[in-house]
Amino acid sequence: MTDDRNGTSMKRRDFLRLLGAAGGTAMVFGAMDAWGLASAQSAEAPPSLDGRADGKRVIILGAGLAGMTSAFELSKLGYETPILEARDFAGGRVQTARRGFTLTEVTGVTQRCTFDHGQHFNHGPWRIPYHHRSTLHYTNLFDVPLHIMVNDNDNAWDYREEEGNPWSGERRRRREFTADMGGYTSQLLAKAVDQGALDQELSEDDRERLVNYLVLYGGLDRDELEYRGVAGRGYDEDPGPGTNPGVPSDPHAFGDLLRNSVINGFRAAEGHTQKNTMFEPVGGMDAIAKGFERAVGGMIHYGQEVVEIQTNDDGVVVTVEDKRSGETREVEADYCICTIPLSVLSQIPANFSTDFAAAIRAPTYATTGKMGLQFGRRFWEEDDHIYGGHTTTNIGTNITYPSYDWQGEKGTVLGYYNFGSTAIEVSAMSPEERIRYALELGKKVHGDVYERAFESGFSVAWHLVPYSLGGWASWSSDARRDHYPRLTEPDGRLFLAGEHLSYMTGWMSGAIESAWLQIEKLHEHAHARGLAGVSRA
Amino acid sequence: MTDDRNGTSMKRRDFLRLLGAAGGTAMVFGAMDAWGLASAQSAEAPPSLDGRADGKRVIILGAGLAGMTSAFELSKLGYETPILEARDFAGGRVQTARRGFTLTEVTGVTQRCTFDHGQHFNHGPWRIPYHHRSTLHYTNLFDVPLHIMVNDNDNAWDYREEEGNPWSGERRRRREFTADMGGYTSQLLAKAVDQGALDQELSEDDRERLVNYLVLYGGLDRDELEYRGVAGRGYDEDPGPGTNPGVPSDPHAFGDLLRNSVINGFRAAEGHTQKNTMFEPVGGMDAIAKGFERAVGGMIHYGQEVVEIQTNDDGVVVTVEDKRSGETREVEADYCICTIPLSVLSQIPANFSTDFAAAIRAPTYATTGKMGLQFGRRFWEEDDHIYGGHTTTNIGTNITYPSYDWQGEKGTVLGYYNFGSTAIEVSAMSPEERIRYALELGKKVHGDVYERAFESGFSVAWHLVPYSLGGWASWSSDARRDHYPRLTEPDGRLFLAGEHLSYMTGWMSGAIESAWLQIEKLHEHAHARGLAGVSRA
Repeated sequence: MTDDRNGTSMKRRDFLRLLGAAGGTAMVFGAMDAWGLASAQSAEAPPSLDGRADGKRVIILGAGLAGMTSAFELSKLGYETPILEARDFAGGRVQTARRGFTLTEVTGVTQRCTFDHGQHFNHGPWRIPYHHRSTLHYTNLFDVPLHIMVNDNDNAWDYREEEGNPWSGERRRRREFTADMGGYTSQLLAKAVDQGALDQELSEDDRERLVNYLVLYGGLDRDELEYRGVAGRGYDEDPGPGTNPGVPSDPHAFGDLLRNSVINGFRAAEGHTQKNTMFEPVGGMDAIAKGFERAVGGMIHYGQEVVEIQTNDDGVVVTVEDKRSGETREVEADYCICTIPLSVLSQIPANFSTDFAAAIRAPTYATTGKMGLQFGRRFWEEDDHIYGGHTTTNIGTNITYPSYDWQGEKGTVLGYYNFGSTAIEVSAMSPEERIRYALELGKKVHGDVYERAFESGFSVAWHLVPYSLGGWASWSSDARRDHYPRLTEPDGRLFLAGEHLSYMTGWMSGAIESAWLQIEKLHEHAHARGLAGVSRA
Repeated sequence: MTDDRNGTSMKRRDFLRLLGAAGGTAMVFGAMDAWGLASAQSAEAPPSLDGRADGKRVIILGAGLAGMTSAFELSKLGYETPILEARDFAGGRVQTARRGFTLTEVTGVTQRCTFDHGQHFNHGPWRIPYHHRSTLHYTNLFDVPLHIMVNDNDNAWDYREEEGNPWSGERRRRREFTADMGGYTSQLLAKAVDQGALDQELSEDDRERLVNYLVLYGGLDRDELEYRGVAGRGYDEDPGPGTNPGVPSDPHAFGDLLRNSVINGFRAAEGHTQKNTMFEPVGGMDAIAKGFERAVGGMIHYGQEVVEIQTNDDGVVVTVEDKRSGETREVEADYCICTIPLSVLSQIPANFSTDFAAAIRAPTYATTGKMGLQFGRRFWEEDDHIYGGHTTTNIGTNITYPSYDWQGEKGTVLGYYNFGSTAIEVSAMSPEERIRYALELGKKVHGDVYERAFESGFSVAWHLVPYSLGGWASWSSDARRDHYPRLTEPDGRLFLAGEHLSYMTGWMSGAIESAWLQIEKLHEHAHARGLAGVSRA
């Protein structure tokens, strides 16, 4: 489950690159989990903190989930918790594109979302696994209604272009491949047991139990131990009314399956962060940001860009520029919780200690892009019978179908979700070119309807988004070991928080729980010193 | 996929009994699919029928889905389609229990549902697989909003009581067992390949591809080909913020797993009818019945019990008793579509031909019961982090958690869903005793909170429900061969329709599609004869 556990010295990134080359994006995501990278489960609730801190002041940098969590929980203890936010809205990366939403990337290119009313697209975080208790703590507390996000659907397509794969350039249902691989591998093992290959390792009773399991698991003929297809792979003609019992489908040839890289994305147990049950807030992920905003919105000062940070053993001084007036001012506080992404923080002048500053520069930040495509007709449901889930490909992205407004008139699809060099290449395109690129990808799977039904697109390249400059922190195992621990401790009176301060990077729960951890440390620190508030700015 | 395909002469029911004994109810359900019993996928749309039939009269017996589908589609062609319904509501078995819903079983025992407003329980059909196109055709046409029904959740519990099983009497997460079985079987096969056991059968390239697949699928150590656990089975301590990378969990011993009958319910490919994406109508399954009712409600005559049927080559005469007045009358028509369950129809005096009458008596009807339990707190979500899906057991039932009102205050759980002799035994209890029985089952899994949080229960025993007398038709392979085909043809001027006239028994799509098939036959029959309407009753 971790590098150590697998007893290998291969670097994570090399491994991911290798997998990516073999199996496409979906595989990289599956693999991340096995290596403990994207894995996460949340604590249940915020820390239970004693004592009051009336008059103490904690300046919070960033009104994302980490910042708003900090303000919400600390203010209950009497801390004064002004939040400085560079954007003119709360939520940080927890954003939802809907009609009128505007995004200007660092290149100066601006997009204004023109989706129909009722359509939305979560271009930031988009999924809440059931075990992210901390996120669910706040959806519950702030009455944010949830619906299911369909995160697996083996009736969706797989589409690949690769040498040796007999279905190269042809879309097929994922269920055909999952069922057949399960069937053939069960057959091979059952026959090996039957022929005595495991007589040394298993008792006769256990061999019988194992073969019985394999017959059921793989759908084998009980006498011959042969796999000849199962209903779950789909029928050639479905069972129906009257005298139609259905026409079963024949399995693919095993040798052909082994030449299809789709199989390298299959897992006996879905990766931890990808497991059902998976949620999204009704109406868009920013409902969570708005929930927090209802609680702490009065503390947020919008359009305040941090331009310098000074921290020492007595307090913190933050210099901010008001983006409307262009004026700068200094804000003083007893403490600071800084939730600014390290990609951005590393560029802000500060008097951080050498090791702290080095650690801030240690992680890379994910280059990643997403495209939302509004279609005038839900052809994936009407024509293809695909309700949510992901069509997998090896041509640079998956395609994800919406999990809301089932059987509605229109729908908004995730046209691409890309990473690494692909994300960089696509982000260099104009918004119109990105849409063209996404449509060409989708047409390979869905044909011309993908272009005919297209109505509106909205894309993000997170590495180009001001105040984010990346999707999430990406810690190499070296950087985790050498630099990361330093950031979990304060520098002077400044504490960091955010998804980058967790082993749940890229997830909202990482942001929330890092805040829970850091406010506890801050509160202990403050009480140990019996500090009073400083003069107000 | 079918009996023939498996090349075995074992009777379906014997097979099911065997499986049931070994692995409990969940297994029986999985197995039904492999044997083509409960498998189903619907046609896309109703038949496209030409010509008019103005003045022709088709009396429809039963305002369930088959009857209302028949009336809706035939009336478009000009047929007059009065529906006689014994109950005082439409939908047949498509019912939802909510506050005020009343059910009197044939024993005379009446239950009145006392759930809170907003709570409901689908005690009849409760799931719509994505491939049931015919059901989805009407949810779309009648604007019935849908949400996801969570049909798999490996974070739910498994609980078993059985000799030799080291976890007997102890609840465990299903994910531990699914992950470990996938891991160990992958390990065994990978090592067998590595040791040359498959050199005859696979080329060197294919052996490499297979081992690579098994390493990824099972989560094996790549060098040792050993399974040592995967993140997807769950952590002992979850990865968190700060310096907590999580504590992986150790896999169970393989020999122990083989002694746990839960494994016999695992499938490489989910059975056809159990596959995601799965839906239920928002607010309850009877939203579908009400959708139909909005379209054909004016044609329905409620409280009309059929007491005799006479059919011949010229028409049909149905004698009905008005349940309020007790008066009987004769209704004449050119045709009849009879959707009365065969369990009931077999007891109604009729002049059916000998083979037709014998065929009506050929199937058995499923004895089956369901219990809805309203709890004042969603402890399965709050305490156990289970959002929807099924806790599996071998003590007579699964327990299914609600897929609506996530994080709500209260919730209604499927406390039991039983079959066969268990259903008969439980149905002999009073409603209060059934609740007590359900609570005792649930307490084994959930402990005392199951009793403390309990508020209200509502149960059904379908074999005791008037005008249904069973859950669904259960055709043995002999009866399918010897009797079933006869019923798909008319007897005189009477055509049958209903789930029993399909290979999708027990599913709404079976009812709908059987109606689609039979109205097409009826329409052809009428046109071939150029019939005019008979005098009106």
